[in-house]
Amino acid sequence: MRFFSDNAAPACPAVMDAIVAANRLTTAYDGDEWSQQLDGAFSDLFETEVKAFWVTTGTAANCLALAAMCPPYGSVLTHKMAHIEQDEAGAPGFFTHGGKLTLLDGEGAKIAPDAVDEAIGRVRKDVHQVQPHALSITNATEYGLSYGADEVAALGDAAKRHGLAFHMDGARFANAVVHTGASPAELTWKAGVDALSFGFIKNGGMSAEALILFDKQLAPSIEVMKKRAGHLSSKGRYAAAQILAMLDGDVWLENARAANRAAATLAAACGDRLNLPVEANEMFVRMTPAEAQRLRDAGFDFYDWGPDEVRLVTCWDQDMDAVETLAQAIRAL
Amino acid sequence: MRFFSDNAAPACPAVMDAIVAANRLTTAYDGDEWSQQLDGAFSDLFETEVKAFWVTTGTAANCLALAAMCPPYGSVLTHKMAHIEQDEAGAPGFFTHGGKLTLLDGEGAKIAPDAVDEAIGRVRKDVHQVQPHALSITNATEYGLSYGADEVAALGDAAKRHGLAFHMDGARFANAVVHTGASPAELTWKAGVDALSFGFIKNGGMSAEALILFDKQLAPSIEVMKKRAGHLSSKGRYAAAQILAMLDGDVWLENARAANRAAATLAAACGDRLNLPVEANEMFVRMTPAEAQRLRDAGFDFYDWGPDEVRLVTCWDQDMDAVETLAQAIRAL
Amino acid sequence: MRFFSDNAAPACPAVMDAIVAANRLTTAYDGDEWSQQLDGAFSDLFETEVKAFWVTTGTAANCLALAAMCPPYGSVLTHKMAHIEQDEAGAPGFFTHGGKLTLLDGEGAKIAPDAVDEAIGRVRKDVHQVQPHALSITNATEYGLSYGADEVAALGDAAKRHGLAFHMDGARFANAVVHTGASPAELTWKAGVDALSFGFIKNGGMSAEALILFDKQLAPSIEVMKKRAGHLSSKGRYAAAQILAMLDGDVWLENARAANRAAATLAAACGDRLNLPVEANEMFVRMTPAEAQRLRDAGFDFYDWGPDEVRLVTCWDQDMDAVETLAQAIRAL
Amino acid sequence: MRFFSDNAAPACPAVMDAIVAANRLTTAYDGDEWSQQLDGAFSDLFETEVKAFWVTTGTAANCLALAAMCPPYGSVLTHKMAHIEQDEAGAPGFFTHGGKLTLLDGEGAKIAPDAVDEAIGRVRKDVHQVQPHALSITNATEYGLSYGADEVAALGDAAKRHGLAFHMDGARFANAVVHTGASPAELTWKAGVDALSFGFIKNGGMSAEALILFDKQLAPSIEVMKKRAGHLSSKGRYAAAQILAMLDGDVWLENARAANRAAATLAAACGDRLNLPVEANEMFVRMTPAEAQRLRDAGFDFYDWGPDEVRLVTCWDQDMDAVETLAQAIRAL
Repeated sequence: MRFFSDNAAPACPAVMDAIVAANRLTTAYDGDEWSQQLDGAFSDLFETEVKAFWVTTGTAANCLALAAMCPPYGSVLTHKMAHIEQDEAGAPGFFTHGGKLTLLDGEGAKIAPDAVDEAIGRVRKDVHQVQPHALSITNATEYGLSYGADEVAALGDAAKRHGLAFHMDGARFANAVVHTGASPAELTWKAGVDALSFGFIKNGGMSAEALILFDKQLAPSIEVMKKRAGHLSSKGRYAAAQILAMLDGDVWLENARAANRAAATLAAACGDRLNLPVEANEMFVRMTPAEAQRLRDAGFDFYDWGPDEVRLVTCWDQDMDAVETLAQAIRAL
Repeated sequence: MRFFSDNAAPACPAVMDAIVAANRLTTAYDGDEWSQQLDGAFSDLFETEVKAFWVTTGTAANCLALAAMCPPYGSVLTHKMAHIEQDEAGAPGFFTHGGKLTLLDGEGAKIAPDAVDEAIGRVRKDVHQVQPHALSITNATEYGLSYGADEVAALGDAAKRHGLAFHMDGARFANAVVHTGASPAELTWKAGVDALSFGFIKNGGMSAEALILFDKQLAPSIEVMKKRAGHLSSKGRYAAAQILAMLDGDVWLENARAANRAAATLAAACGDRLNLPVEANEMFVRMTPAEAQRLRDAGFDFYDWGPDEVRLVTCWDQDMDAVETLAQAIRAL
Repeated sequence: MRFFSDNAAPACPAVMDAIVAANRLTTAYDGDEWSQQLDGAFSDLFETEVKAFWVTTGTAANCLALAAMCPPYGSVLTHKMAHIEQDEAGAPGFFTHGGKLTLLDGEGAKIAPDAVDEAIGRVRKDVHQVQPHALSITNATEYGLSYGADEVAALGDAAKRHGLAFHMDGARFANAVVHTGASPAELTWKAGVDALSFGFIKNGGMSAEALILFDKQLAPSIEVMKKRAGHLSSKGRYAAAQILAMLDGDVWLENARAANRAAATLAAACGDRLNLPVEANEMFVRMTPAEAQRLRDAGFDFYDWGPDEVRLVTCWDQDMDAVETLAQAIRAL
Repeated sequence: MRFFSDNAAPACPAVMDAIVAANRLTTAYDGDEWSQQLDGAFSDLFETEVKAFWVTTGTAANCLALAAMCPPYGSVLTHKMAHIEQDEAGAPGFFTHGGKLTLLDGEGAKIAPDAVDEAIGRVRKDVHQVQPHALSITNATEYGLSYGADEVAALGDAAKRHGLAFHMDGARFANAVVHTGASPAELTWKAGVDALSFGFIKNGGMSAEALILFDKQLAPSIEVMKKRAGHLSSKGRYAAAQILAMLDGDVWLENARAANRAAATLAAACGDRLNLPVEANEMFVRMTPAEAQRLRDAGFDFYDWGPDEVRLVTCWDQDMDAVETLAQAIRAL
């Protein structure tokens, strides 16, 4: 019974069916009928006209967006625990050609508007210091917190105040939408977000994420950079089809609801052990090595996160029986 | 009846089956059981120990290899019609951080060893001129010619003579193996090739190419650069599984044989109209606009390639009835 | 008696005096009183409001301009013998972060408007091919030819027609102004030039070139990139002072006149031996190795340029006695 | 009476004389007789065979060294107040093609070996996190502290322990040598330093710094990158000559002694007002705005550094009368 990572989960049935259905002769790259539907499908979802690209990884989505927002000599404000800082092998520096990440603090990998103001205040406006050009947040965060629509909007205001473009890494955007109850529009462009990395893979997709541009002026350079970075797959139909399948009938929400529900069950069992509120599908749980071992002996797999801390992640296809069994095992510790 | 591009074809049944079979809980990135088999499977195929990576595009395979071979201040010798020069949006410059392509001439996008010697001879050995660090050829070429094992070996000697690393873009490697009758080993490392972009997608794959390193010293930097370029898919199992499925039972050779056979049938029909020998699955055919229109009116689709020239491409799943019909129609022009 | 290179010559008296005069306490970087005068001095010279930067090398001037004109995924049209292609160690690729040079042909390193049109015509307007963003010419060219005002204007029209920014490498701009008799304005912005690398060092300067922006929108990014490339000297006063000293009283023109005059004397002596017209301070002269040896035995130094070809370069301080002696020696061959 | 910045000071007489003496016909770039002497002169000074380059800015010296030490996908450990982080417009990211700076803490911009160990300990050894490749310290630091030979050696050990190359930014190296009494060798290669940016400009030079390589394997790539970055001046003689003139007769030490002596006099006057010990030529002094205004009214110029803090910098040519006057004025506050 694995609570390791949502990347370990399989693809959901709708995705598999869509790939099989897309397996026929068509046009190469993104000229096919599925790719051509993306803009429309996401424009409907977000209640505004957007430009949408399929990409194969969240890193590509994040860094193509940042490269369009930040010149090589600029910086992006982000949390010091952000995925773009911690887990992308320096990809933002690669795609932006040397742009910096300016690191902010904040509980649970969450950035407060004040932290943005302070970071900007520390930068002299001259050619000697690197000037910030963008702000990037993750929703839900790398520590399983969700920004509500008001919180995003406050950051959007801060971004606007300082002339920063605003990017959201939504590797777990679905979990945040489900948790906050906000609409996709409210959590993004209505709150000032210019580009969203919309994650599908952790949420039951196979090999496609989407990059959504609310600021469509970013599109032309991203289109070229995507090709230039080797991210224009020659048979793009399979990427587009799986995304459309997850939008269709709100599979993406259904999957996230299942993961969040499993997390809530575990969170209730963890009680005081929780180091942070559970607002998505990740739990950071205080636990001695001996306790962790007891759970492992009972057949549960998960990551050690720090001394006396473990991380549990739930997935779209989490077996609720296993969840209940784990919940009881935690209570029994 | 489409003779546009091998990228337009669907994925073959073995690939689709493999993806379905790989759709279960496992480890993320390339820790899964399929990814872990790649080195072994390709080492068997190439009769030597290799390091193999899945990637999602040929551009990524080509440019990761070149970036490991050529410093930012170096150049790569290649044909002026090479895919890396003509059709990758400058990706080699992106991945190498500004490396140049030094362009060579040659009939049918084929490079002769003399052309390498001459290009090297034109470069002063000083800090003012960009020094060549690698040679990249395409086999089969962008114009449907295949290098035989001896020809590759002669280029391998030239590369060694000048201290150049040697890369082969094998987007249609399978077609070249089938046409030349050489073994994969003879066409590559035995002839001095250090890295091969081994194409699967045009040959019936869905979304995975392989990068094969015969010079395993290239591996550590490529492993990092692959992640950094956003090419380490979080559910890599689907890429690895489709490659393994095409190696298994020589599906890759069977598919290429079918495409080459269809091409040979058309080549015979084209006769004197051929601008180049047909040594893979592409034909460049002299044809007036009026003649081309007549074929289109009869239901055949293909690209205009130049004034009075069209390109025909055959695929792994080419319907031989359609091929025969087209052959007759060409003869009847 | 050396006819090697104008880079071998010393700095002229006005420059040395200016450096001594500038040797006092002032403000660092470019806040000093000399640096602050540059915009005004060049605006006067060019009869329009310009933005001017001192830099320490022509390579820096050229590549900062190109980096502001061409995105990493774009290309710059230039002559295949251009200094930026042949002699800058790939600096354009470094400063533009991977931009390409698209190489054009033309006698004497000169580009014709038709060559621009043809090069543009060969590029498909899609994401697969690198799109040209700028045109760069050298005046006087690397082979000692000068573009007249009309010729520059015709290229300026071509640039505009294709949406290209227009850069002039003026390492020997002074020689071209003297030869053509055109005004600095006529040879540049009036003819559509957006940025000029204005050379001083070959023409009697010590360590400063100027980058002149007619399109002042290029200035903000160049200002940052100059610092970022390590080209914002902390005691900039010495660079600015030497440039001002050469503008003052038209020392720059006087120096170029001397060099061109010496070249004309030699050109007359060379007669039919000249491979190209002499329109600046360089001569490319047919000469057998035995003849060249005879001149060397007589005390003249110069470069072999090719088989049976030597290059002679004259400088701002060329001793006219030595020039006459060489002229006679050539006639006597 | 200005106590702003050592960059504001003029060049010292030995430098001016050397430039005048070097003003004659010679060979271009670094082929001249002065440039050719650099390796020998610095090898003598450092009591070991080194490779030495002139460059025009400390930023260029620092970043060429870092680019040879750290791949695009690596990071450099440095202090969060280091010049390369704070005041070079992101130049390390430009020269390394996207390498990161990993920021360490420490009083007075000084790094402790423990801080290196801790930073290394925080990095997972996988492809997801950026791996450190180099350590860069500044001696004297940006806050006027000097590392002694033992302190550098302890950091050199830490660097070796973790496989890091070791760079020293010596913009004020002379001041550190004078303050610590250590030999140049003891402060550098004997303590594990691989490359030193040896500052001359702040210390009475005009336009040349030196980059000294103790690890000579770094030389070939730096030689090319220097050209590629536009830092190979065509008349390099003036740079080399001024460096040689400052080494000759220990002018560089004499100048630094003068600056340090002036600083010591002021430090004594500041007493408890000092926020940090004075170990070079910079003082960070607690002072109310009213007090600072009183000094300014008395004719002294300096920077405000923070709330209730000013920075005073002394130079090689500091007028000791002015220093005494300022010392008295401070005492009188």
